[in-house]
Amino acid sequence: MAITTRAEDYSARYNDLVQQAELAENSSVRGCMVIRPYGYAIWENIHDVLDQMFKNTWHQNAYFPLFIPKSFLCKEADHVEHFAKECAIVTHYRLKNSENGNGVVVDPEAKLEEELIVRPTSETIIWDSYKKWISSYRDLPLLLNQWANVVRREMRTRIFLRSAEFLRQEWHTAHATAEEANAEAMKMIDVYRDFSESFLATAPVVWRKPAHDRFAWALETYTIEPMMQDFKSLQAGTSHFLGQNFGKAFDVQFTNEQNELEYVRWSSWGVSTRLMWNLIMAHSDDQGLVLPPALAPIHLAIVPIFKTAEDLEEIKSFLKPLTDKLDQTYITFSSKYAEMRKKLTWKMDDDTQKSPGWKFHERELKWVPLRITIWKRDLEAWKIEVFTRATWEKVQMTVEEFSTNMEKMLLDIQLLLLQKNKSFREEHTYYVDSYDEFKEKIEKGFVFAHWDGTAETAEKIQEETKATIRCIPNEWFVKQNDKWVDMISWKPSECRVLFAKSY
Amino acid sequence: MAITTRAEDYSARYNDLVQQAELAENSSVRGCMVIRPYGYAIWENIHDVLDQMFKNTWHQNAYFPLFIPKSFLCKEADHVEHFAKECAIVTHYRLKNSENGNGVVVDPEAKLEEELIVRPTSETIIWDSYKKWISSYRDLPLLLNQWANVVRREMRTRIFLRSAEFLRQEWHTAHATAEEANAEAMKMIDVYRDFSESFLATAPVVWRKPAHDRFAWALETYTIEPMMQDFKSLQAGTSHFLGQNFGKAFDVQFTNEQNELEYVRWSSWGVSTRLMWNLIMAHSDDQGLVLPPALAPIHLAIVPIFKTAEDLEEIKSFLKPLTDKLDQTYITFSSKYAEMRKKLTWKMDDDTQKSPGWKFHERELKWVPLRITIWKRDLEAWKIEVFTRATWEKVQMTVEEFSTNMEKMLLDIQLLLLQKNKSFREEHTYYVDSYDEFKEKIEKGFVFAHWDGTAETAEKIQEETKATIRCIPNEWFVKQNDKWVDMISWKPSECRVLFAKSY
Repeated sequence: MAITTRAEDYSARYNDLVQQAELAENSSVRGCMVIRPYGYAIWENIHDVLDQMFKNTWHQNAYFPLFIPKSFLCKEADHVEHFAKECAIVTHYRLKNSENGNGVVVDPEAKLEEELIVRPTSETIIWDSYKKWISSYRDLPLLLNQWANVVRREMRTRIFLRSAEFLRQEWHTAHATAEEANAEAMKMIDVYRDFSESFLATAPVVWRKPAHDRFAWALETYTIEPMMQDFKSLQAGTSHFLGQNFGKAFDVQFTNEQNELEYVRWSSWGVSTRLMWNLIMAHSDDQGLVLPPALAPIHLAIVPIFKTAEDLEEIKSFLKPLTDKLDQTYITFSSKYAEMRKKLTWKMDDDTQKSPGWKFHERELKWVPLRITIWKRDLEAWKIEVFTRATWEKVQMTVEEFSTNMEKMLLDIQLLLLQKNKSFREEHTYYVDSYDEFKEKIEKGFVFAHWDGTAETAEKIQEETKATIRCIPNEWFVKQNDKWVDMISWKPSECRVLFAKSY
Repeated sequence: MAITTRAEDYSARYNDLVQQAELAENSSVRGCMVIRPYGYAIWENIHDVLDQMFKNTWHQNAYFPLFIPKSFLCKEADHVEHFAKECAIVTHYRLKNSENGNGVVVDPEAKLEEELIVRPTSETIIWDSYKKWISSYRDLPLLLNQWANVVRREMRTRIFLRSAEFLRQEWHTAHATAEEANAEAMKMIDVYRDFSESFLATAPVVWRKPAHDRFAWALETYTIEPMMQDFKSLQAGTSHFLGQNFGKAFDVQFTNEQNELEYVRWSSWGVSTRLMWNLIMAHSDDQGLVLPPALAPIHLAIVPIFKTAEDLEEIKSFLKPLTDKLDQTYITFSSKYAEMRKKLTWKMDDDTQKSPGWKFHERELKWVPLRITIWKRDLEAWKIEVFTRATWEKVQMTVEEFSTNMEKMLLDIQLLLLQKNKSFREEHTYYVDSYDEFKEKIEKGFVFAHWDGTAETAEKIQEETKATIRCIPNEWFVKQNDKWVDMISWKPSECRVLFAKSY
């Protein structure tokens, strides 16, 4: 089955990819997805890298209950507004046989005294524990992360982008000072940036959200905003400095070094299976998935071309020194915050009932970075054909040459994908001074424009163009002899901000 | 705070350990636990080993929805009886502000058309997908595992042993033939045995449950039954060969090689955070936790004894060659199904506000296998004191000697703990021929006795002694000149079976 091309229909193409590459599918439960083995293997690779990054920055994992007592949600009024209005509510704890003998019904007598909410997010239940654990400045900072499933009722669901149940990590860190809590939020957005560049192979624009678009309660929200191939920006990960709201709502105070009582400060951040959307929408081509080798479940496919069982055996024994080495090969992907030593994974496509063409197509669709094809007739010349999916190049080489170069080839592909994503973003990034030009360019990419800092201007632009301010970047995206005035109000601007459409 | 000793009160001792070693605690949600960072780090180590074992035996992970539509539970009548009667039921999807302005209430208008059950176990939702994925023998076997949280309403909860929410893995494998499905169940109980012996350092008695005590629908249930220090047996993990029940209930048929339609066969198995109970109850001593080094979050603590900041710096610079090496040290724990290369983890206990005695006690309570104590005055002699928590031995050695031997020391401790558990079980195992002797010995350990194979005899024994048949072992636990007759009915017996009390 062919995949809808990017030119035809982006949305249909995404669905085709997710389905045909067997990443995930809708389940029989409205809005909940089944993550299939191939998709889950990618998510496990994402998990493992991020988890190492978090541990390398001194965080620890813990696990808190799936359920939140309804009363907890009322402790922080905004919290109900933002998360808890649309949620899954457990009201009963028992089924009984129906009176007509046909199936089971909820037992009305088994009603919970207090309803339980399936966690849409965990800060309320986590801060309930923090209150028990924190009493002195010596208990701080407390840097805990949770990997878990969360549930939100979503009206229009989309696999990986927006589903009723999804998997994610959420950090909630408690600090003695505001400076330290904000520094934590800044450090962790840099961890997400590092992960994006070095593992996802995407080059997001990074830094703070404008005040009107911060997360509820946040005093600062930081974001990573990579460009997808339809020129939209994805809010792929955020971190927040949140001040004392939860410290006050849950009455978590500590004795500082001067022996005075203070409320604890909070930072928080998270990423989710939405990163799978990021991966698919940033890289894929018209032939299928494109995965950075650092996250690809399979690095190498070997396709022997043979007619008889004897031919196959001959090819396999010819390759034995190579395959023995493959089993012992580790590849190290390094970045600022992680050093991932991954076992090289490879598959021998020796199925006798499938044609070589079918095998090639399957591996191209699901993205296996490297493929070796070997013909019986070439054994004497000691040659194999090595195909690089990222460039569609085929090269003849000896087994020894391949064996020596394979790690470098994979690392090069990793870099190439990052470079491609970065170039794509740069090619579709515009510096705009007039609103007319803005309206034209915003359909084709990221736009850096001057902004007067008011929510009113931002709202006007959003109403008229559907574009929003994605972030106020930490780099200087300015032009020579730049005029520092808003493109609409002509009021002074402090810097160019990133406008884009998003999901 | 002292821990209640084993002689005083087992139950109180367990609670003390879990609390004082900061493994877990009860949450504000009835029956749900908070797994604290130190406890979760142990669970992560358990997860990582098992996950590697599953992948090494060709299984893949996937993720299925948290919620099960109520109608799914009715497809398999027994299923409702066993799991779904006591469960968490989601009936509504929205909260609204209460009319008196005080908090939020469930919006009666937001009632789900069909109630959702928070998964007590996942076979029904997984087989709903299997039906879509399986049509031919070429789609089989399908070997999928899920790591996830599950929820069961438990009346009397106990942290790690029996909690409303717990973490676990569950495998549900689909096979073409009964032989293959049963072979899978047998292989995977061997994986659990291997994990128990090589990583948990416990020596369970292994093999099949008697027919009257099989898991619902199972044609065979296999179990691992380690002895805890109170002589009870823990059902620590089970695997099941389940025939065609779910294939039929969910109408999952496949075309076999002869092009005929058949129902798919099923095997299933799982372990959970209950393994934490196993770990704690099998090994701990009166001073605290005892953890096998393969699962211990911290392998080595270094306690410098110093008065001034200069002393501390001097000690640290003396140790620098060692600590540099520690950062590069990996220890490999090997077994039949896994080879875990673990980074050595160590901590420098250089806190100036805590006494050496406090530090020693903390590390003894939480179990750090090795501890180095170093005095400023011993620097010239190049000596350090190495303390082994498992044996309470202190030995003077040079840094070089320690550096050379530390991996072996940790591997030796791992073996020692297994040997201790095995000897303990053997010392408290009895071969009994009369029911009078049985009643006496069953209070003090495992009893191997002949049994006539009937549920009636097993029930009589359970009523009178509270002991059950834990398993029919795969080894020959018989005596010389053994009489092959049941100790009560004097009817013929096929072998000695394991009787014990359990939780």
